[in-house]
Amino acid sequence: MESAINVLVSQFKAYAGKDGSLHTLSKDEFQNLVATQLPNLVKNATDPAVIDRLMGSLDENNDGELTFAEFWQLIGKLASRHAGYSQ
Amino acid sequence: MESAINVLVSQFKAYAGKDGSLHTLSKDEFQNLVATQLPNLVKNATDPAVIDRLMGSLDENNDGELTFAEFWQLIGKLASRHAGYSQ
Repeated sequence: MESAINVLVSQFKAYAGKDGSLHTLSKDEFQNLVATQLPNLVKNATDPAVIDRLMGSLDENNDGELTFAEFWQLIGKLASRHAGYSQ
Repeated sequence: MESAINVLVSQFKAYAGKDGSLHTLSKDEFQNLVATQLPNLVKNATDPAVIDRLMGSLDENNDGELTFAEFWQLIGKLASRHAGYSQ
């Protein structure tokens, strides 16, 4: 499991580091990550309305940036659904 | 990222399915998973007191079993710490 966790951390950092704050995902970075890294787990990942809704539901402090902890909640929900666990 | 997420889900299911409820981790299953799958991220993973404390901190409804969502919170915390993000 540790190598899988490392993949998630390093991919988050790679996308978060593209512009602005190195440690959070801007909306553009988030859209880029979802479209390229989560194409099967997120339906209509290229639809701006889907990205807006997802981002709004995750960005708890509404600063327009997603922290690693906020992002982790998203992939947990996607993983739960994919695993057949309701959440 | 999707393949890494799938690894985490399938490993959780493999350990959760060893005894009792197929969808949750008993304490024995949790201890087994941590010792074998998270040996670097969890220090002293073979110490029963460490396992007791971790399990108690995660098992929100105190039923002695960890759901996938409860387990996901643990690996999120471990990943955050590993990534250098405080949480």
